[in-house]
Amino acid sequence: MEWTRESRYRPYAQWDAKTLLELQAKAAKSPYQLKYHIRPSSGLLNDPNGFSYFNGKWHVFYQSFPFGAAHGLKSWMHLISEDLVHWQELGLALTPDTPLDSHGAYSGSALPIGDKLFLMYTGNVRDKDWIRHPYQLGAWMDKNDQIEKLPEPLITQPEHTTDHFRDPQVFQHNDHYYVILGAQDKATKTGKISLFRSKDLKEFTDLGYLDFTQAEMGYMIECPNLIFVDEKPVLIFCPQGLAKETVAYDNIYPNMYLVGSDVVLDEARFVAGENTIQNLDDGFDVYATQAFNAPDGKAYAISWVGLPDISYPTDQEEWANCLSQVKELSLKDGKLIQRPVKAMADLREAGQLISPDPKNNLAKQQLVAESGEQYELKLTLDPDQKGTLHLAGNADLSQSLDLEFSTGADAHLTVSRANAGAQFATEFKTTRTLELLADQKLELDIFVDHSLCEIFVNGGEHVMTLRFFADVGPKQIALTAAQAKLNYRGTFWKLKNI
Amino acid sequence: MEWTRESRYRPYAQWDAKTLLELQAKAAKSPYQLKYHIRPSSGLLNDPNGFSYFNGKWHVFYQSFPFGAAHGLKSWMHLISEDLVHWQELGLALTPDTPLDSHGAYSGSALPIGDKLFLMYTGNVRDKDWIRHPYQLGAWMDKNDQIEKLPEPLITQPEHTTDHFRDPQVFQHNDHYYVILGAQDKATKTGKISLFRSKDLKEFTDLGYLDFTQAEMGYMIECPNLIFVDEKPVLIFCPQGLAKETVAYDNIYPNMYLVGSDVVLDEARFVAGENTIQNLDDGFDVYATQAFNAPDGKAYAISWVGLPDISYPTDQEEWANCLSQVKELSLKDGKLIQRPVKAMADLREAGQLISPDPKNNLAKQQLVAESGEQYELKLTLDPDQKGTLHLAGNADLSQSLDLEFSTGADAHLTVSRANAGAQFATEFKTTRTLELLADQKLELDIFVDHSLCEIFVNGGEHVMTLRFFADVGPKQIALTAAQAKLNYRGTFWKLKNI
Repeated sequence: MEWTRESRYRPYAQWDAKTLLELQAKAAKSPYQLKYHIRPSSGLLNDPNGFSYFNGKWHVFYQSFPFGAAHGLKSWMHLISEDLVHWQELGLALTPDTPLDSHGAYSGSALPIGDKLFLMYTGNVRDKDWIRHPYQLGAWMDKNDQIEKLPEPLITQPEHTTDHFRDPQVFQHNDHYYVILGAQDKATKTGKISLFRSKDLKEFTDLGYLDFTQAEMGYMIECPNLIFVDEKPVLIFCPQGLAKETVAYDNIYPNMYLVGSDVVLDEARFVAGENTIQNLDDGFDVYATQAFNAPDGKAYAISWVGLPDISYPTDQEEWANCLSQVKELSLKDGKLIQRPVKAMADLREAGQLISPDPKNNLAKQQLVAESGEQYELKLTLDPDQKGTLHLAGNADLSQSLDLEFSTGADAHLTVSRANAGAQFATEFKTTRTLELLADQKLELDIFVDHSLCEIFVNGGEHVMTLRFFADVGPKQIALTAAQAKLNYRGTFWKLKNI
Repeated sequence: MEWTRESRYRPYAQWDAKTLLELQAKAAKSPYQLKYHIRPSSGLLNDPNGFSYFNGKWHVFYQSFPFGAAHGLKSWMHLISEDLVHWQELGLALTPDTPLDSHGAYSGSALPIGDKLFLMYTGNVRDKDWIRHPYQLGAWMDKNDQIEKLPEPLITQPEHTTDHFRDPQVFQHNDHYYVILGAQDKATKTGKISLFRSKDLKEFTDLGYLDFTQAEMGYMIECPNLIFVDEKPVLIFCPQGLAKETVAYDNIYPNMYLVGSDVVLDEARFVAGENTIQNLDDGFDVYATQAFNAPDGKAYAISWVGLPDISYPTDQEEWANCLSQVKELSLKDGKLIQRPVKAMADLREAGQLISPDPKNNLAKQQLVAESGEQYELKLTLDPDQKGTLHLAGNADLSQSLDLEFSTGADAHLTVSRANAGAQFATEFKTTRTLELLADQKLELDIFVDHSLCEIFVNGGEHVMTLRFFADVGPKQIALTAAQAKLNYRGTFWKLKNI
């Protein structure tokens, strides 16, 4: 389907239900479809929104365009969970149905207040000249999941920003509510984070741009989050057009984070100290991560696995993208640690121990003869090893998702999807490399869900997340050694659907 | 919404997608919504169809009208499972999109043949005078769940039936394929089961009506199934308008079964011997049960929980009905035994033992203070007891689903939904009573899923299935005694979503 402005922004009531039912069936039947991650019921999914804990359940929403693999007229789709793993889709929530969000109920956040969940989001409006007008809107969701929108915008776009002003994160700190927004400065056309304060969520004071770096943050910052992890402030954000000299990255747009030593919100000061801006994910496809401080005292994050302006092979099946698993956040040496949540282990079927076969010490060792398409593999590689772990390998390993590693002097992990089926986004390279500390063991906790791979490295010090679209057929997991012998041990579990 | 002929039979492409998304969200958010049973993604669900094992998975389809709680233009919706418990919806499958099924892809069955699944179903057509024309159609589904319809009807309606001729069950026996269909005899206007034979699924020979009873089977038989259970033939069918003197029943239309000692298909003879026609379910709401012989050597059944011509409280939420859990069939003393499948136990959370509190021997004993809305309760009551088990009870038990029992001389179990929230179908009584053998213990295995209750009695000798719509709020399980002391023991498990 050729997407035009008309078809992207066509009201949902002008799409027909047969088309929607067929799109839903096509997405459900795709061999690439996710089975234990949040995926679009049809069409395109992008940013996670409103990630929160309310009314005894975890809530998350996702940006949805239900009618194809295109960024069209967006709504919030709603899911709930009791354990951050088993999600139930409740369907359409916030929809573009007022003059203030006529061209999309864009991204935002949620905060439980009293017995309701307060939603704050950007209403996207295009005027007749197709000029963008972003409105920062509010809505209340009750315990029956019924949503009532507030009639007026909450925050007026400041004079000092352009119309690139969106993605409000609302949170409580000390005695106030605060909102941060992604913004573009009008004078310099650079990416900024705008900060507002409110006592009542009615009147908001513009505290200006959050001062968190001297470096230029590209031309726009999307999806900023300010959370507290182990009592330190952490900023998670997506700078678009960031110079690679400022922070190296490979994806079209990066998702970055910065750990602070302190934050003084009323002075719009985020004190980074010695910490530097880092890639949140070292894989290919993470963007628009949303994080929040939960009432259980922990901080959780969930990411869009997908990137703006990138086509994916499932576009041909008229659906695109998914959300990552939820990651529990902690800090270690000023760096963010991201770990699977506890309930992920509930998805495991009986485990299968992995260890070298002493009778069969070949350059190639098969770890799992038929892995299927949804599993977890925990694998520890001893220091001073060189080789490649092949996931989703065909019979002769001419096709596989390759994790080439060295745990010796030039320690690194390189993920290559060059031989992993359908190719896409190759202009942004087919490999991602993580430099590692020399002569240390390498601990991998790998989750595969059909077309998604999440690699937690060394207890979550790094995560490498990526989509891949291997050919349909039996798939093995194997190790090939670049040296005489490999020492490793691990466990393999098939994982259940959610 | 007022349903008219026009709105019931409006093509799906003339419904708008916004309406469908809203209906899906409304169904998902209903407090009555099922969480571990198959339920409509929107609108109305009725008969299970195409229950089968194919391509390494269990398949079932359901009759769907996606646009409200009405019997409108029907499609098959498709689900798959690896364990007969965890079902995944794959969405729209067979749709009414040819001149032979223009008014509905009505009920039918499935049979794996070679590397495809053969679907046989009734195409419902109404002509301009609204005269019904049923066509018995075929289609092939491949391993990618793609369906191709055959261009011509397979079976021509015999001269001796009226246009009430539908619900083909196709099965293999000895060297032939056979098809049975629900039919109305033209001369007598009585319910019949039509039998056909084929060598190739192309040419079919009319073997006449299956001779299985001397009694008159009302004015129409729907959804006939012929299966083999413990090597005996068993007929499961829905006679409409059956005289209550022939077999007693309480529902608007019953779902009956008959165990045979032999069947000679080529002579259209089903030999019942001493066995009589029995209610398949002793509750309020089972109809259109579909059963088949699986390659694991077992016979399985799944039922529509819902009845034709009955309104349910969720009609106001624009969705209706669900499927039962899958029941494994066996025989004992010429009677059908129906048991939960093994994987149902995988839904259990940690169990809680139930036993009388010797220090608190009151006329009322609370078994579970807050049961929630989805659980299994196994309870054994000793002989010579009288009392009532209250499910979904409010604080003072003024509201509850009541299971009044006696295990003494006048042994029986009476289920009453008279005090269980919203009332419906009350013209067919608010109680169902099962006579039991005197002075025996009573073993109950009860499954509650929000608005559904399935009671397996004495190891599946009887099943009582019913919908109920209790008020929202905390719910207790309690026993009230009609005698000094009750002796019982059991286990309570909360159950997971599927």
